[in-house]
Amino acid sequence: MAEPKAPLPATETMATTRVRPQVSIRGRSVGPIASSNAVGEEVPEFEPFMLLPRGPPPLTDYLDVWDVNMLKEPEEVNKQQHHTDRYANEGLIVRRGQEFQISITFNRPHDPSKDQFALEFVIGATPQYSKGTYIPVFPSEERNKLWGGRVLDTSDNVLTMGILPRADCIVGKYGMYVAVVTPYGIRRTKKDPSRELYILFNPWSFFPDDSVYLEDGAERTECVLNELGIIYHGAYDDVSERSWNYGQFEFGILDACLFIMDKGALPITNRGDPVKIARKASAMINSKDDEGVLVGNWSGDYMYGVAPTSWTGSVEILLSYANGGDPVCYAQCWVYAAVFNTFLRCLGIPARVVTNFFSAHDNDGNLKTDILLDENGKVDRSRTRDSIWNYHCWNECYMARLDLPEGFGGWQVVDATPQETSDGMYRCGPASVYAIKHGMVCYPFDAPFVFAEVNSDVVFYQRSRDGTLTPVKVNTSHVGRLVLTKAPGSNGRSDITSMYKFPEGSAEERTVLEKAEEYGVRRQDVTPPVADVALDIPSLEVKVGAGFDLALDFRNSSGQRRTVEAYTNGYVVYYTGVPSAEILFQSPTVTLDPRAGDAERKVIKVRPEDYMGKLVEQANLHFITTGKVKETGQIVTAMRVITLHKPRLLVQVAGTPRVSEEMLVTVQFTNDFKFSLENVHVRVEGPGVMSPHNKLYRLIAPGTTISWTESFIPRRQGPSKLMASLDCHALRQVTGEVDVHIEN
Amino acid sequence: MAEPKAPLPATETMATTRVRPQVSIRGRSVGPIASSNAVGEEVPEFEPFMLLPRGPPPLTDYLDVWDVNMLKEPEEVNKQQHHTDRYANEGLIVRRGQEFQISITFNRPHDPSKDQFALEFVIGATPQYSKGTYIPVFPSEERNKLWGGRVLDTSDNVLTMGILPRADCIVGKYGMYVAVVTPYGIRRTKKDPSRELYILFNPWSFFPDDSVYLEDGAERTECVLNELGIIYHGAYDDVSERSWNYGQFEFGILDACLFIMDKGALPITNRGDPVKIARKASAMINSKDDEGVLVGNWSGDYMYGVAPTSWTGSVEILLSYANGGDPVCYAQCWVYAAVFNTFLRCLGIPARVVTNFFSAHDNDGNLKTDILLDENGKVDRSRTRDSIWNYHCWNECYMARLDLPEGFGGWQVVDATPQETSDGMYRCGPASVYAIKHGMVCYPFDAPFVFAEVNSDVVFYQRSRDGTLTPVKVNTSHVGRLVLTKAPGSNGRSDITSMYKFPEGSAEERTVLEKAEEYGVRRQDVTPPVADVALDIPSLEVKVGAGFDLALDFRNSSGQRRTVEAYTNGYVVYYTGVPSAEILFQSPTVTLDPRAGDAERKVIKVRPEDYMGKLVEQANLHFITTGKVKETGQIVTAMRVITLHKPRLLVQVAGTPRVSEEMLVTVQFTNDFKFSLENVHVRVEGPGVMSPHNKLYRLIAPGTTISWTESFIPRRQGPSKLMASLDCHALRQVTGEVDVHIEN
Repeated sequence: MAEPKAPLPATETMATTRVRPQVSIRGRSVGPIASSNAVGEEVPEFEPFMLLPRGPPPLTDYLDVWDVNMLKEPEEVNKQQHHTDRYANEGLIVRRGQEFQISITFNRPHDPSKDQFALEFVIGATPQYSKGTYIPVFPSEERNKLWGGRVLDTSDNVLTMGILPRADCIVGKYGMYVAVVTPYGIRRTKKDPSRELYILFNPWSFFPDDSVYLEDGAERTECVLNELGIIYHGAYDDVSERSWNYGQFEFGILDACLFIMDKGALPITNRGDPVKIARKASAMINSKDDEGVLVGNWSGDYMYGVAPTSWTGSVEILLSYANGGDPVCYAQCWVYAAVFNTFLRCLGIPARVVTNFFSAHDNDGNLKTDILLDENGKVDRSRTRDSIWNYHCWNECYMARLDLPEGFGGWQVVDATPQETSDGMYRCGPASVYAIKHGMVCYPFDAPFVFAEVNSDVVFYQRSRDGTLTPVKVNTSHVGRLVLTKAPGSNGRSDITSMYKFPEGSAEERTVLEKAEEYGVRRQDVTPPVADVALDIPSLEVKVGAGFDLALDFRNSSGQRRTVEAYTNGYVVYYTGVPSAEILFQSPTVTLDPRAGDAERKVIKVRPEDYMGKLVEQANLHFITTGKVKETGQIVTAMRVITLHKPRLLVQVAGTPRVSEEMLVTVQFTNDFKFSLENVHVRVEGPGVMSPHNKLYRLIAPGTTISWTESFIPRRQGPSKLMASLDCHALRQVTGEVDVHIEN
Repeated sequence: MAEPKAPLPATETMATTRVRPQVSIRGRSVGPIASSNAVGEEVPEFEPFMLLPRGPPPLTDYLDVWDVNMLKEPEEVNKQQHHTDRYANEGLIVRRGQEFQISITFNRPHDPSKDQFALEFVIGATPQYSKGTYIPVFPSEERNKLWGGRVLDTSDNVLTMGILPRADCIVGKYGMYVAVVTPYGIRRTKKDPSRELYILFNPWSFFPDDSVYLEDGAERTECVLNELGIIYHGAYDDVSERSWNYGQFEFGILDACLFIMDKGALPITNRGDPVKIARKASAMINSKDDEGVLVGNWSGDYMYGVAPTSWTGSVEILLSYANGGDPVCYAQCWVYAAVFNTFLRCLGIPARVVTNFFSAHDNDGNLKTDILLDENGKVDRSRTRDSIWNYHCWNECYMARLDLPEGFGGWQVVDATPQETSDGMYRCGPASVYAIKHGMVCYPFDAPFVFAEVNSDVVFYQRSRDGTLTPVKVNTSHVGRLVLTKAPGSNGRSDITSMYKFPEGSAEERTVLEKAEEYGVRRQDVTPPVADVALDIPSLEVKVGAGFDLALDFRNSSGQRRTVEAYTNGYVVYYTGVPSAEILFQSPTVTLDPRAGDAERKVIKVRPEDYMGKLVEQANLHFITTGKVKETGQIVTAMRVITLHKPRLLVQVAGTPRVSEEMLVTVQFTNDFKFSLENVHVRVEGPGVMSPHNKLYRLIAPGTTISWTESFIPRRQGPSKLMASLDCHALRQVTGEVDVHIEN
């Protein structure tokens, strides 16, 4: 596997100095804006109240701090109560809007009557009280203005304090100090990394109200705590699944997420707002114009990186990015969505990956996708430039929208896949799903784009001699056919199409489309005459390498005899709908007797040799039949995407599934094809049990079997999975998995 | 003058290949998205209807095109009727939604009964009818689907056609062809640059309705056709002016504007929408993250470029950018606004530069600006990090907002000055001015930021020993004190504050602030007790180099004796409010007898030597007095900005003011200061009369006078101005001008 290496140091300099000379912020602002979570200059250890004769005086009997216990072990109270015990991270991790505890050992029992002290929390450079980046917390209720603080317990020299961070405080990594007031000034504990703590979003916090509070317990558990994901692809009527390791709790991932915000220079003061964080991340997860996490590549050439289909999880990607900040190669939509999902869940924002089947991408809020036919009704490939993605993955994250009127909170669409035609917008969302369903696309952010992705019409134009086009057919139900996400708490599917759209043909649907048009979403206005001849291509389930019969079902409801000159094209297409090679062309003429509506079927035989040599990527075949009815001049059309099914990987484990005990995993694959597979990458990993491993097979000859065994040591008890993938140029996205349940 | 030169070619490559390897669009989309106005592959000269035995047949009596006349001379019908006669541009320039004319000379008279032809207009690569980038226009009404076309006149072989572009068509440079239909196929005229035409926005077009239609004739003339600008700066109660040459009609400017959209890769299909164009331009006018037009610099060090204060117009900047695409050094807010204004007016979008006095910049939609005081009520400079700009310039452009609900059209704020703290947002707007006035900040784009710029509160905090802060005074009327723009048709000022805000203290004002808070705009909630001691510093008009008396007027309405321990600080500040050097500190104790409200005045003498050595930039002095009332502990504060007045340049012209006759301009300046001026840049230019000239004086000794004479030849009749500036490190923004009226 070859991640892109760091460029020559020179490059960075030259890259950034193109706009040169470098200009200082002098005159522009008083100081640099804090946009990094890295702690800035230290808080002084001694802050005198007045000029002292000769430095700090000797301490007589003033309160002195001997030790501070952050109670940060997974089994201790903080991480348990704050649902952060799974993070493989040595620091204290708590959630805002919920009390956590810290024990302080003084040189003697604390005497409220005369001893004054405070816990000070600071984040970012130049911490300021008025900006919420410097927060002193006192043991006495009435003195606390930002965060709550109280003494929970005192025994001898040890005092245990409860701290309640505001439910809207900044999310990130804080430094912590204990400050004791003496008559001469304030004495502080030294800076100590072991006393740093992470404060995250808190979907459990209803009162005080965190804006990411999610009421539904099952959804909350799924969308914040589950590291095991299922991502849907393929076709709406033949859905395929693949597992994904989000790994939001794995070692280094939380720091990687903070690094991403730092790299995006998101001001510290914005980091309490899930809307701003989600929006910034949608820009940073892709590398476009900001050197973000993932480089998109749909070309089929992945020489210098990892094929998008080869990844099995987010961990490898995020760690590689955090280690140097160079974009990782390569991603397609589901990789962007999966890594984005890890980012959101890791910070505590409820999030899920959704798949929209037949997604009208890249069309810039325009509600139509054009397919051009020539005079005879045959598809004119040279002039048809739009494509509909077989599917597109994006994310939903759950939050209140305090920046919008009532009612637009809840699930929000965010999409990190760079939109190519949307005004150079390499970020998308958050856009309220409710707003999209109701056509209220006037509210930020980028609602018109998402609306078009699920609502576009497919318009067939016929081109006349003089170059003008006439719309001859409009298919309003093709795009946004099905929206799926993993069901909470199970491995089942949850159909959420109805959250995006009203039923096809319903009155509400019409109203919504009109509403959206009021807000400038353009769509095809003409509605061509209804057809008396219908055409349909039934779906098929086909194994890669198999031959099959493609059926064309004509229905003649005219009551008279009809003759259709049909053209059937078959293409190998990318999942973006972009054709790669033509595999079939036939132009049968079909005569339809006036029958009682039942179909006249025309069968087209497709042989393996027709397509096997031409497959790309995820092996999708796209058939489109168009034709003209001789008698009426009416145009009939039908489209069908067939996703060829792949062989599975056999994944097996051996050994006792117990924490810290070594186990073995074996990945097995047999090449049943007539050709050999070259440069085959095999990957395997499992959240909490096995870090990502991968292995390269230069050649797997026809008929041969490979078997790869690796050992691993489970880190955590509970249910998990081992997920494996096999990927090479000739055969992409072969996957397999096995469930494991680790005992303690 | 040193524009930044193009970097080594290497740099560009390395810069762009940091995310390497370069990835093709293969698989991602059918073809590249047309995002350049550069015409792509040529339209074929012959398009056969069917396979022909041996190429195109000999032409027998089919219609043949001999010549095409675009009627593009300034005095001809098109440019006159379309208000485009002033453009120094050889192409035809027309506005959409309004008919223009083209004459075609055929080989014989055109016979409607048998001759079929069309005018074809194409823009960008891969023109498509369905995308509005390929438009055939026929002489017969009924065949036209996108644009109107009709025969206006036929005489012998010459046919004059009227073409009516849709009022929402793409704005930019089109190619034009005449296509004749023959039985064998379509024959076209050769590609010919002299037949290209520009189509611009049309603020005159009410029916059909261009979304930039502006009803008010005076405003329309001012905001589209006027090249002479006045930009306001200084202080709200002592406003200074400077003239600016927008030069939107100068040679090369129109092409430069199209180049900016190409550089920003704005999809061609978006270029009919003024909202998308204005938004993209707000990002492209500054160089941040997209290698845009202008590099911001507030540091006072302009060694490698032109000082922002030195520019006299936009022409030099835009031409230098268009010639290579390297960002131009340097700009501050008024330069960004002025160049943006040129861009908008040049494309036909009504636009004006506005100045907001006391603008709360960089505060990321947060409605407060913090000033921190220590326990004694003295300003704590080390902890006060916010600043209020003495003034900030942005643009308003006029357009319907089809993307928003009814009522938010009209003037829209766009701002090209990079906002530093706004979520990496180096673009701002369009934000509806109406929405800002009414607190409806939930509508795109970036309304909360603009709202804060005119509505923030200034909050004085007092810091207690333990680090907590208590708000002791809130000034709600300081920010957004006055919003000015040039009055249409005159050189007067137009106060448009009331378009942004309801009157201070009115009921509406409160409602609006509450409304804005509903949409997440945070502000200071506490309101400290009303004061019984008031403090004011009256304004002053001061010449640079002069001494003056600063008055502190205390008012004691308590009815009792009061003692105020006051602290007065004086600073030299940048116009961003950022202090550069302290020039004065006094801490008088003032005793106030219970008088009938009349003021107790304390006078502080400021001598030239106090500040002259420390002046920066535009020579602003900022005085702030804070104090504590002994008896009540109440805090009193007052602030005053004094803009030191500069000497003027003397500008005179000689010769007869007639088109194409040589004239002379003389710029004169006497150094009345006690120090010499070094590296002094002098500039002079005038729209339609003189292109930008500049001259460098290495040294101007005290008491000496420089006089610089240049010749120029007026290009155009009518009123104009010659504007000059003098700029050096020690003395910035010295300007002068003279009116000229050129006869024909």
